Amino acid sequence: MTSISAGVSSAGADLDSVADLARQLRVDSIRATTAAGSGHPTSSMSAADLAAVLLARHLRYDWSDPSRRDNDYFILSKGHASPLLYAMYRAVGAIEEKELLETYRRGGRLEGHPTPRLPWVPVATGSLGQGIAYATGMALAGRAMPDRPYRVWVLCGDGEMAEGSVWEALDKAGLHKLDNLTVIVDVNRLGQTGPTEFGWDLDAYAARMRAFGADVQVIDGHDLGAIDAALQNATVAERPTVILARTVKGRGYKRVADSPDWHGKPLPQDMAEEAIAELGGVSDVRVRGPIPRDAADEPDQVHAALRRTPSESRPHVTAPTYEVGEEMATRKAYGQALVALGEHDPDVVVLDGEVGNSTGSQQFEKAHPERYFQLYISEQQMVATAVGFAERGWRPYAATFAAFVSRAHDFLRMSAIDGPAIRLAGSHCGVEIGPDGPSQMGLEDLAMMRALHGSTVLYPSDAASAAKLTVAMNQIPGISYLRTTRGSYPVLYQPDEAFPIGGSKLWGEGADDVATLVGAGVTLHECLKAATELAHDGLPVRVLDLYSIKPIDAVALQACAEQTGLMVTVEDHRPEGGIGEAVAAALADVPCTLRRLAVDALPGSDSPERNLAAAGIDAQSIAAAVREAVGPQG
Amino acid sequence: MTSISAGVSSAGADLDSVADLARQLRVDSIRATTAAGSGHPTSSMSAADLAAVLLARHLRYDWSDPSRRDNDYFILSKGHASPLLYAMYRAVGAIEEKELLETYRRGGRLEGHPTPRLPWVPVATGSLGQGIAYATGMALAGRAMPDRPYRVWVLCGDGEMAEGSVWEALDKAGLHKLDNLTVIVDVNRLGQTGPTEFGWDLDAYAARMRAFGADVQVIDGHDLGAIDAALQNATVAERPTVILARTVKGRGYKRVADSPDWHGKPLPQDMAEEAIAELGGVSDVRVRGPIPRDAADEPDQVHAALRRTPSESRPHVTAPTYEVGEEMATRKAYGQALVALGEHDPDVVVLDGEVGNSTGSQQFEKAHPERYFQLYISEQQMVATAVGFAERGWRPYAATFAAFVSRAHDFLRMSAIDGPAIRLAGSHCGVEIGPDGPSQMGLEDLAMMRALHGSTVLYPSDAASAAKLTVAMNQIPGISYLRTTRGSYPVLYQPDEAFPIGGSKLWGEGADDVATLVGAGVTLHECLKAATELAHDGLPVRVLDLYSIKPIDAVALQACAEQTGLMVTVEDHRPEGGIGEAVAAALADVPCTLRRLAVDALPGSDSPERNLAAAGIDAQSIAAAVREAVGPQG
Repeated sequence: MTSISAGVSSAGADLDSVADLARQLRVDSIRATTAAGSGHPTSSMSAADLAAVLLARHLRYDWSDPSRRDNDYFILSKGHASPLLYAMYRAVGAIEEKELLETYRRGGRLEGHPTPRLPWVPVATGSLGQGIAYATGMALAGRAMPDRPYRVWVLCGDGEMAEGSVWEALDKAGLHKLDNLTVIVDVNRLGQTGPTEFGWDLDAYAARMRAFGADVQVIDGHDLGAIDAALQNATVAERPTVILARTVKGRGYKRVADSPDWHGKPLPQDMAEEAIAELGGVSDVRVRGPIPRDAADEPDQVHAALRRTPSESRPHVTAPTYEVGEEMATRKAYGQALVALGEHDPDVVVLDGEVGNSTGSQQFEKAHPERYFQLYISEQQMVATAVGFAERGWRPYAATFAAFVSRAHDFLRMSAIDGPAIRLAGSHCGVEIGPDGPSQMGLEDLAMMRALHGSTVLYPSDAASAAKLTVAMNQIPGISYLRTTRGSYPVLYQPDEAFPIGGSKLWGEGADDVATLVGAGVTLHECLKAATELAHDGLPVRVLDLYSIKPIDAVALQACAEQTGLMVTVEDHRPEGGIGEAVAAALADVPCTLRRLAVDALPGSDSPERNLAAAGIDAQSIAAAVREAVGPQG
Repeated sequence: MTSISAGVSSAGADLDSVADLARQLRVDSIRATTAAGSGHPTSSMSAADLAAVLLARHLRYDWSDPSRRDNDYFILSKGHASPLLYAMYRAVGAIEEKELLETYRRGGRLEGHPTPRLPWVPVATGSLGQGIAYATGMALAGRAMPDRPYRVWVLCGDGEMAEGSVWEALDKAGLHKLDNLTVIVDVNRLGQTGPTEFGWDLDAYAARMRAFGADVQVIDGHDLGAIDAALQNATVAERPTVILARTVKGRGYKRVADSPDWHGKPLPQDMAEEAIAELGGVSDVRVRGPIPRDAADEPDQVHAALRRTPSESRPHVTAPTYEVGEEMATRKAYGQALVALGEHDPDVVVLDGEVGNSTGSQQFEKAHPERYFQLYISEQQMVATAVGFAERGWRPYAATFAAFVSRAHDFLRMSAIDGPAIRLAGSHCGVEIGPDGPSQMGLEDLAMMRALHGSTVLYPSDAASAAKLTVAMNQIPGISYLRTTRGSYPVLYQPDEAFPIGGSKLWGEGADDVATLVGAGVTLHECLKAATELAHDGLPVRVLDLYSIKPIDAVALQACAEQTGLMVTVEDHRPEGGIGEAVAAALADVPCTLRRLAVDALPGSDSPERNLAAAGIDAQSIAAAVREAVGPQG
């Protein structure tokens, strides 16, 4: 067993030892994938030298304590090179050989692409083009907020440079001059199906990245000395660093090196044996890279971040209160609640996508400018930044129009894989926005947000519930989402009313009710109007405020269905995946009649009232649906 | 009434007349928005000079016939400047003053943001950062395929340059050296809530765009001569042109010019009057810009594109056939069907996001390389390119992993606004993929795709249905989606079996059936296994193959529910927005018991079989659910 050690400086292990480590990372990548019968050995082998130098000499990480808040971050954006990552973990002693050789199997934590089930993985990767985005969020947190001077290192592939999200992220990294961010691009020139767009034309990448504000170094990604110098330079650059490394896919085993035919294929046993022999055999090199400096050396102020943990209980925050009948938009109440949160909880931060005066976020900006982050028009990066801040223990709320949350769908999907708690608000939902037309109408957001793993979806109808739910989101794990409405509507609830997650509110319950109208947001107000109209006609109905869309109040829904027989859901959303189907699922076993009113036809530009009428979700349409369902005896 | 005319050359109207036109565009933008009480006059005014020169002297468009396939395209990426667009339409006589002054109202076609309800608008805009992407698709179609030499002109805002999708598009425009594409950026330095990232630092944008392969010109966006020269240069450049124009928001009315306080606000009546007076009053300038050259001048070969129309009936294509029992992945059948389509329908084109060997697209690449387009890892641009090709009359099929379709969600949402027919395939859905882990598993795609306006969602279980549905997609309007599975499963259907959209297939129907199992994709095979197991236990059940998820076969579902009482849906998808909820909605009024088996917990990396078992959607789980629901008498 060889042991190399780098100690606390970045110049510990000599490069000969690092070469041994790099060989072992290749060998272990081959062993793990051949044993699994799955995975990407060649994509791991191209980056092995980069990883070895980083691990042994530059990544400051206390492997005995991944919870240390002053550890650097290493994000494997090219998540399919997970065998390399796992080989690194073995080399530092974080995992044993046995676990490495059981990669991808029987639900173990060494998954096909890295997930935060591993304590050393801050964010799930594997959807390409996302690593730099999360890293930029973490690096921004480290520079914009009081914190320890950790660094963020990202290893990317060249293929993923075609994703717009990469440039969206680099733009923000450059704008904020994030000198604590280093992006290493493993330019092995081969993607899944053949050559990448630019092959080994590293200058093409370099020009782009320089224009985006990065300090760029172009190196031979198999020259350990050059790698070491580039990584060292990164630590003293005054801007984000991009290291463009020319590498060879499958490097280390001649039969597969630089071949387009070996993407994502484990070597068969005989080739694996040949490759391992060519690489010098199985070894047990152990590496101890640099660790963070002792926190005791740092002034007290920056220790705050170390004490902050996501599980810590939050200070009590009183939501703003409103007078019943007062007209107020839920998006404004969201902003007012953010201000209150900011006042009482020093960890709350707010992000917005250049629409803060529309979403309500701007109120927080005015009250707490030092904790407000303008992401401009970049929703993917807004979500990634929220994830980055959350990883550092901050409690982000991020907002844009409900329609544009869809731009970040894949980031949300990935963040839902054991990611930290983030909070989103989507304003201007539905046809209610009126004249701006369909491009600005969030009509699919409930379907998208409900289908995310572990998500919570809230949809208040008045300012009182909006404010209380906004405050409640501070305690919700995973991804929580608040859907807000453009227009002003009367406050419905007294200041002492509580809105538990998973609850609902019942209006006008009576023993003779012929129907239950189920609404949220603007449609709740339409339901209440319809109820009044129907009562005049001798058709008593009750109204259920379904402010918690997920989890849903199945108990209340089922009781109403049993008592009234007829259920009418009304939503300013497409018929699929929203309130109507959530209610249908909750009532599947209850004999009842269900009418689902939703926005099915393509809406246009008109007044909110006429848009609601055209979509068949206004009070008159609701009343008509009840009358039709009840029949002529009604 | 003034009339200016440009005739067929690009040097018709003199610049003094163009100045009159520009003044009128500003006046009309103010009039339309003040009349509507909504809209973005100042964002229109900054771009009025750019629009006037383009319209009068460079945009080749036969306003008397928007269906002409040799017209240029003008795409207003900054869709909120729709008043400017509508003012342009008035100036060419396409709309009358009366309609202009009713902008945004009563469901008229002049919507808040442009939509294809207007015959001159090829794609809906208003979600920023999308215009260049669609334009790149159209320009690529014009260069890569036989067609007339139309040009594509895009007008963007500076704020939207923060969207990654802009760079994803410029990358492809540069890669293909699309000399028929001109991007004009109206750099008025002010976004919705304040200054943009780079303000008037046009050099910052220029460096980026040059690095992305564009020919860049930096001009004063209010200097008509400079604009004219830049637009002229664009027509002779050998690469895509970006014109960076320094402009003043609200230009033309001193009280609002360059003010951050007037974004998205119509002028009140008194200010509107003052502004119109300052601009020289209401006018009726009519412009006749250049029109396309007569098609008779062109060689026959390029006329093909002119004859191609989306409504044309398609040639008959016979789907590949399979032997029952043969093991074959649906993704492979998709590829084989594409080959057959390519052979018989010369208008079919195929796009892929660098995963063609996984999705099946690569088979088409080998058979018809001239109609195969590699988009690399850029899903937003893949969808936008499909839209661009479809706009030119081609019939695109685009594929990536189901998980990564989510990256293009906002583009799909926008394309669903009266966009042309495009076809998508999402492979590797669900936990069935096994060891690659959750990042690669499409588990939310049914919810996303079902909720799109006018979409069709198909999910075949065997190669026979996959091939036939792939062929059927060629005739489906709007966005159609085929969900395919990674693994190979037995062919279930004979070659003569038909799979109408909206249909289903019933297996093992019997009068004594105690349950109906509803599956699609891999879960159909699990349902069939469970049915066999249950039959051995004396519990006869039938199985419904729900290959058409949207539209859904409500009639068959309701009949089964009435006949068997117990319905069990099984899906390799999250519980929200997929098969279970679609069935729950279809059965809402039928008294029955519904059990919905879906992937609720976060899946991991394991074999397909163990992943299905862990998610509770394998044959054993299905049989257990039936036994539990049927009770001890079963």
